[in-house]
Amino acid sequence: MTTLIKGGTVVSSTGSSPADVLVEGERIAAVLAPGSAVGASISADDVIDATGKYVIPGGVDGHTHMEMPFGGTFASDTFETGTRAAAWGGTTTIVDFVVQTRGQRVQDQVARWHDKAAGNCAIDYAFHQIIGEVNDESLKAMDELIGEGITSFKLFMAYPGVFLSSDGQILRAMQTAAANGGLIMMHAENGSAIDVLVQQALHRGETTPYHHGTTRPWQTEQEATHRAVMLADLTGAPLYVVHVSAKQALARIAEARDAGQNVFGETCPQYLYLSLEEQLGAPGFEGAKWVCSTPLRARAEGHQDELWRYLRTGDVTTVSTDHCPFCMKDQKELGIDDFSRIPNGIGSVEHRLDLLYQGVVDGRISLEKWVDVCCTAPARMFGLDGRKGAIAAGADADIVIYDPHGHTSIGLGKTHHMNLDYSAWEGYEIDGHVDVVMSRGTVIKDDTGYIGAKGHGRFVKRNLSQNLI
Amino acid sequence: MTTLIKGGTVVSSTGSSPADVLVEGERIAAVLAPGSAVGASISADDVIDATGKYVIPGGVDGHTHMEMPFGGTFASDTFETGTRAAAWGGTTTIVDFVVQTRGQRVQDQVARWHDKAAGNCAIDYAFHQIIGEVNDESLKAMDELIGEGITSFKLFMAYPGVFLSSDGQILRAMQTAAANGGLIMMHAENGSAIDVLVQQALHRGETTPYHHGTTRPWQTEQEATHRAVMLADLTGAPLYVVHVSAKQALARIAEARDAGQNVFGETCPQYLYLSLEEQLGAPGFEGAKWVCSTPLRARAEGHQDELWRYLRTGDVTTVSTDHCPFCMKDQKELGIDDFSRIPNGIGSVEHRLDLLYQGVVDGRISLEKWVDVCCTAPARMFGLDGRKGAIAAGADADIVIYDPHGHTSIGLGKTHHMNLDYSAWEGYEIDGHVDVVMSRGTVIKDDTGYIGAKGHGRFVKRNLSQNLI
Amino acid sequence: MTTLIKGGTVVSSTGSSPADVLVEGERIAAVLAPGSAVGASISADDVIDATGKYVIPGGVDGHTHMEMPFGGTFASDTFETGTRAAAWGGTTTIVDFVVQTRGQRVQDQVARWHDKAAGNCAIDYAFHQIIGEVNDESLKAMDELIGEGITSFKLFMAYPGVFLSSDGQILRAMQTAAANGGLIMMHAENGSAIDVLVQQALHRGETTPYHHGTTRPWQTEQEATHRAVMLADLTGAPLYVVHVSAKQALARIAEARDAGQNVFGETCPQYLYLSLEEQLGAPGFEGAKWVCSTPLRARAEGHQDELWRYLRTGDVTTVSTDHCPFCMKDQKELGIDDFSRIPNGIGSVEHRLDLLYQGVVDGRISLEKWVDVCCTAPARMFGLDGRKGAIAAGADADIVIYDPHGHTSIGLGKTHHMNLDYSAWEGYEIDGHVDVVMSRGTVIKDDTGYIGAKGHGRFVKRNLSQNLI
Amino acid sequence: MTTLIKGGTVVSSTGSSPADVLVEGERIAAVLAPGSAVGASISADDVIDATGKYVIPGGVDGHTHMEMPFGGTFASDTFETGTRAAAWGGTTTIVDFVVQTRGQRVQDQVARWHDKAAGNCAIDYAFHQIIGEVNDESLKAMDELIGEGITSFKLFMAYPGVFLSSDGQILRAMQTAAANGGLIMMHAENGSAIDVLVQQALHRGETTPYHHGTTRPWQTEQEATHRAVMLADLTGAPLYVVHVSAKQALARIAEARDAGQNVFGETCPQYLYLSLEEQLGAPGFEGAKWVCSTPLRARAEGHQDELWRYLRTGDVTTVSTDHCPFCMKDQKELGIDDFSRIPNGIGSVEHRLDLLYQGVVDGRISLEKWVDVCCTAPARMFGLDGRKGAIAAGADADIVIYDPHGHTSIGLGKTHHMNLDYSAWEGYEIDGHVDVVMSRGTVIKDDTGYIGAKGHGRFVKRNLSQNLI
Repeated sequence: MTTLIKGGTVVSSTGSSPADVLVEGERIAAVLAPGSAVGASISADDVIDATGKYVIPGGVDGHTHMEMPFGGTFASDTFETGTRAAAWGGTTTIVDFVVQTRGQRVQDQVARWHDKAAGNCAIDYAFHQIIGEVNDESLKAMDELIGEGITSFKLFMAYPGVFLSSDGQILRAMQTAAANGGLIMMHAENGSAIDVLVQQALHRGETTPYHHGTTRPWQTEQEATHRAVMLADLTGAPLYVVHVSAKQALARIAEARDAGQNVFGETCPQYLYLSLEEQLGAPGFEGAKWVCSTPLRARAEGHQDELWRYLRTGDVTTVSTDHCPFCMKDQKELGIDDFSRIPNGIGSVEHRLDLLYQGVVDGRISLEKWVDVCCTAPARMFGLDGRKGAIAAGADADIVIYDPHGHTSIGLGKTHHMNLDYSAWEGYEIDGHVDVVMSRGTVIKDDTGYIGAKGHGRFVKRNLSQNLI
Repeated sequence: MTTLIKGGTVVSSTGSSPADVLVEGERIAAVLAPGSAVGASISADDVIDATGKYVIPGGVDGHTHMEMPFGGTFASDTFETGTRAAAWGGTTTIVDFVVQTRGQRVQDQVARWHDKAAGNCAIDYAFHQIIGEVNDESLKAMDELIGEGITSFKLFMAYPGVFLSSDGQILRAMQTAAANGGLIMMHAENGSAIDVLVQQALHRGETTPYHHGTTRPWQTEQEATHRAVMLADLTGAPLYVVHVSAKQALARIAEARDAGQNVFGETCPQYLYLSLEEQLGAPGFEGAKWVCSTPLRARAEGHQDELWRYLRTGDVTTVSTDHCPFCMKDQKELGIDDFSRIPNGIGSVEHRLDLLYQGVVDGRISLEKWVDVCCTAPARMFGLDGRKGAIAAGADADIVIYDPHGHTSIGLGKTHHMNLDYSAWEGYEIDGHVDVVMSRGTVIKDDTGYIGAKGHGRFVKRNLSQNLI
Repeated sequence: MTTLIKGGTVVSSTGSSPADVLVEGERIAAVLAPGSAVGASISADDVIDATGKYVIPGGVDGHTHMEMPFGGTFASDTFETGTRAAAWGGTTTIVDFVVQTRGQRVQDQVARWHDKAAGNCAIDYAFHQIIGEVNDESLKAMDELIGEGITSFKLFMAYPGVFLSSDGQILRAMQTAAANGGLIMMHAENGSAIDVLVQQALHRGETTPYHHGTTRPWQTEQEATHRAVMLADLTGAPLYVVHVSAKQALARIAEARDAGQNVFGETCPQYLYLSLEEQLGAPGFEGAKWVCSTPLRARAEGHQDELWRYLRTGDVTTVSTDHCPFCMKDQKELGIDDFSRIPNGIGSVEHRLDLLYQGVVDGRISLEKWVDVCCTAPARMFGLDGRKGAIAAGADADIVIYDPHGHTSIGLGKTHHMNLDYSAWEGYEIDGHVDVVMSRGTVIKDDTGYIGAKGHGRFVKRNLSQNLI
Repeated sequence: MTTLIKGGTVVSSTGSSPADVLVEGERIAAVLAPGSAVGASISADDVIDATGKYVIPGGVDGHTHMEMPFGGTFASDTFETGTRAAAWGGTTTIVDFVVQTRGQRVQDQVARWHDKAAGNCAIDYAFHQIIGEVNDESLKAMDELIGEGITSFKLFMAYPGVFLSSDGQILRAMQTAAANGGLIMMHAENGSAIDVLVQQALHRGETTPYHHGTTRPWQTEQEATHRAVMLADLTGAPLYVVHVSAKQALARIAEARDAGQNVFGETCPQYLYLSLEEQLGAPGFEGAKWVCSTPLRARAEGHQDELWRYLRTGDVTTVSTDHCPFCMKDQKELGIDDFSRIPNGIGSVEHRLDLLYQGVVDGRISLEKWVDVCCTAPARMFGLDGRKGAIAAGADADIVIYDPHGHTSIGLGKTHHMNLDYSAWEGYEIDGHVDVVMSRGTVIKDDTGYIGAKGHGRFVKRNLSQNLI
């Protein structure tokens, strides 16, 4: 089976130019100059006309939590529903998190996650490993996982008693990563201080979703980010700080990068667009829709503009979703009287490419930067280069045809395919549209809608990060 | 005529992977996955085996001065000899500087430079425009040149009475560039202060090449760099600072870039490897070989290490040569009693790719960074993207096959093809080798040596910069 | 003649405590603990009750321009009227600027200024020297002036063709100061760029006082400040940047100071309180009242708050007035059709202590900081320590009794004694009051008003700066 | 009893001038201009000739640990021996630390410390409070102590299981201090990370004193310092970081101070002079003499020079000793096989003024800065202004006559009066000498030696800090 995508403009992270793309089986066989003799000689089984459209690599969402257990419930998207929604939105690879916590064996958990995902995914998937309990056994498992294609390890400075590692534990895990080449991912918030602030707020009767934001002030994020940077510097481990929302935290990341340290920042669409005042501060319990950690930050403090600027200047390396959906009913509602019981998370896996493309339309970032932060950089960051994240001969044929003249209205009953009873992005209008999505050579979404199949997606073993400074 | 380059590893600024490259006529027709059916079906006129080698874009040297008039003499390489030497070293495009100075019309000078270059070049060439006298007429010419493919304009803060523009003149030229989309290039040294230091040094009898360095202290470069950044900020013009040698100047550039300003730094191989103490301080008049401005900096101050770091962290955007050769005999000798009369310049156009590749071998930069700073970034910076600087379908077939198992000994009688009676790089040994060089589909250098032809190279009209932040 | 000031709180730059002050003749003979036996034994000729009041050193205004020639007219205060107004406001020493410009001999100008001031002043005075033309002769004069008690030298980076020195000239003057121990004072604005902006604005018909501000953007101040810092670093000269108004310029000063360089910043009350929008943007030609250079800055950009912060954190060393009054009638009016012809200057010599004290009341600075920046720091900065700027045994008895329970309404017909037909501070209300002013042991202002005498003030020869880092 | 100190030069933190000082009873009655009539009229009981000498405030050592329990032993100086040694060296006030740790009541410990000190001290003393266990009761005690003259509270980020407070506990204590006006003092080292490094080192057989230094790398100090700064920013508490030894930690302090935050840094003589290589790395077990935390830093990294610079530029506010002596025999020897068992501490209380004066001689700091960091700034910092730290009418007559023409050889058998079987400063030669020491009007040390009396020293209730930015 061969497919020729003709007439489009191929966009990479370093440029855009007209080119045709020939797919043979699951891979890109050739990128062809329009009008070339070799191109003219090709008779493909299928030809897709991409005239006037962008041909970009399928999106790589480096941060999702399908079916994640949290506070007695589970993230509402399964690998089946979540990857299908991703496919609708042009994302063709997710990297999900295996969760290990106190008393659990890492390898048991990896097996569990493989069980959950195998045979259920619409698109390819890979795993990061959460190390919730750093001890001799889990450190040894880190070494083993490298060979199994799980090459990044997430630690928490938040959630004492659940996920939080002490600085000594972080140090040990970083030493291990420095030795085995793995990447340390960090949830950087000072959980010890936050817990005091939360208890004090609840004691004062400040129980609404808005207070989720006020009890996680930017200082707690800047602090933890700097602490992680210092421990990484001490050990030589590369460090990837997840879901950065505070401009001050990014300033610390930029400072470390300027000094040549292998430190990377990820942000998410919610931090680029949404705010403490507007979303968390919505009337009644509405704000619960946007309870996630790190929290949405105050627009008055200028975080959103600064984050766009950091994207532009390169100190934010990737944009992921931190997709972790919980329904309002029965889930978010657990915290109706106490914001600290609201499951943390927002569902965005379907909308990342669109939301970031709007940044191109709005003049925030360039077309190339869009492709870079959504596709190429996460692929390189997580050891998928050569297979994912680029329109390149030999790579997996994960391809999106994006129409800059199309339009997308986000919201329930419009473009919502996540298993979630509300949309965090209700009402957002995008001046562009995901027309066609191809995963490993198979079209899984076209103008008739989703046409993929459960089980098409395969587990991808990842290499070590290819993106180090 | 078709050529297939098979078996190599194609390196881009964002990754490396095995791929074959099909050239049809002057352009890259296709980049092909090894083992693809379409690849197997191709019968090219010529096949080049690149097994075990890197296939990289031809080098783009964004800063050369062929036949440049300076202090009563001319740079010793003509467009013919200089571009031939460039070809030997894997550079397939140069951007040379048209010189306008007091009392000259810009358009007359452009015509003169076209005359000098046309029919003489081994490789493609483009022009920047030096504006030595900013006035109503030259500002108007800047607008006109954009349409003629000369889209960048160099100003000088050094050389009072010759090239120096006042800050008011710089402001006007920057306003013009901000409006027409052109790029301002800046020689950033405080010429007024330097001239006093030079006169004082000569008065004290400090007349040797070493004093060329001591009379241009880093403060004069940091100062001018910051001044240029401020004027650029005021006007909105993009700014490209040429031949940065002081770490402090780079700190100012990095600071501006962090703030989102379109500021770019160029450095040259001499600043990465050579030093005030070792080269300018060589016995007798030997140091004259390395008299150039900005000067080589003191190794004891750590500039060289910092420059490599800035390359790595991305605040140096490009590495050019500032190729401006003057022979020791009759030329450099003009300053035997007075360093201020030594023609300024070093010849490196032949060795840039090799010297920077050694940085890869030495662990200073990654393979991808090498390709980026030598090829891709200068092409994008100077509006050549889509044609130069990348192995991409549709681009000009400017291709270098680089052998990481080869070896290159630099020096007279070894690898020296520049019209220069000494080598600034005598004795440098490179753990790699330029095997094959193709310019617009024609092999101009192979293992038999240079096989190109005078006049093969054509003038390339440039677009506006495609590299803005 | 002896006077005992009893019952007050003596405030120094490092603390406040109850103490009595005994004056014998022109000097402070003793500072006495209240209730001490030695104090009880004193029978002074005169006793002043300072109960409930602050006893502070007389103010030292390090930056005034009495009778200064500017654009064909003269600053409207003579040494007689200006120093009398200063006395009203608690300032007991001014340091005025001798002006040398093209074609003038420095020593001739010093003689002229001595002539103007001698026998006319209500309070003591000293001189800085403006070097408007740096050449061999004026550099030699700098050495001579040190011995004559004129130990600081002001240069201009603004006003091309009038006062502006080239960077080479600045370098030479700084070398001279580095050798003779003098202090370089700098008017740091990029005059070359500003002149272009001014001509362009006038060409566009932007002729009002507001455009005085818009044509001197903060970048021109930051730039020149950094340039001065770099040249000072190169030469080793101490640098004092006058009338800093842009927060970005102060950031450069703070950065240099953090690195241990002897760089100092001065600001003025107008930059702490007034703004581009409110004053320069006043209706009609009203804004002319506040035309001075550096200009008032936009409040929306936050300069005023930052300046108070820099005062607090110590990177602004002194607050002077840059007192340079021009009447609206016949003087400011010269620029009614062209802001560039408006004489530059604001009259504040009378109000500095009051305006800064209001900063204490408003919680901007501490009581000690008030005394420091208005009295002690300028005295030390300009080589007057031991005589001026402190309530200390042996020092000149220049003393102010300030009543924190008093009130001062600033404005014409209220507290205006400057020879100026308007008040730049009309309507400002101060929660404090200058009760008594003593100059070298003589009360020159009390609750009956000014009771001093023309000619009481003497020229003070200054030492080298005692304030270096 | 009255004493007149005649003919000396009184040095304050803002200047030096000839003045006589009259002491009546325990206080300074007057500071007198030499040659004044009032001075001539005084007939004191005693006259001390200070001609040619400096008259400075008695030293205030803000950080001592007399008889401190540590690892099963006690610091070897009692309040009696330690304060006597301090007196020898010109220190007339110490602020010692009351220790509260797990399970202890703060108020009980305060009572214990009063018992230890009362009637035993040669000089005046005050207390800080160590809060080793932050809980509701100790937080309440903090409020009570303010009224008892104990206005500063030390927390630890090091020593897990002994003194370490969690970040949440630190947050609570800072909130309390922000409310009651107290000062938070912080031992800023990341104890959790350090403990891992220590265990790993011991496991590798790295057991010598040198490894005490290598297992507390600067990153652990920079990290904790920044964390403390962030928590202070969040709560509004003023923060004083004790014994800063890493230049990177000071950079964070300087950064916070530039931003206007009330953050202060203390360093100690050992960090200014001694190093990891030379002292901790001494042969055999010798290095144990200098085991203290934070540790001595590597000279090759440039900490010592930077610390002197920070002193000069004002971001180090005070120099204290952290006097905590342990004898080699029976005490330091506890760690002969395991550096982690060596009691931490160096004895310097006797030598601080001399060691810092040598910095004046060596051109590191000015005379005024010497007095400021050793006397005036600690007095103001800890709420003793008006009584201690200045030669001022009404202040306690704590006075040192320092001879710049004298000489002091430090070492056992020379100038060693501390109860310690070695000198950390053996062989240091000082170009100056403490001639006379007066405590509250009584000479306690003169050229005959120590002539004070046990029990002369009294407890001083402190006010809130008078030194806030």
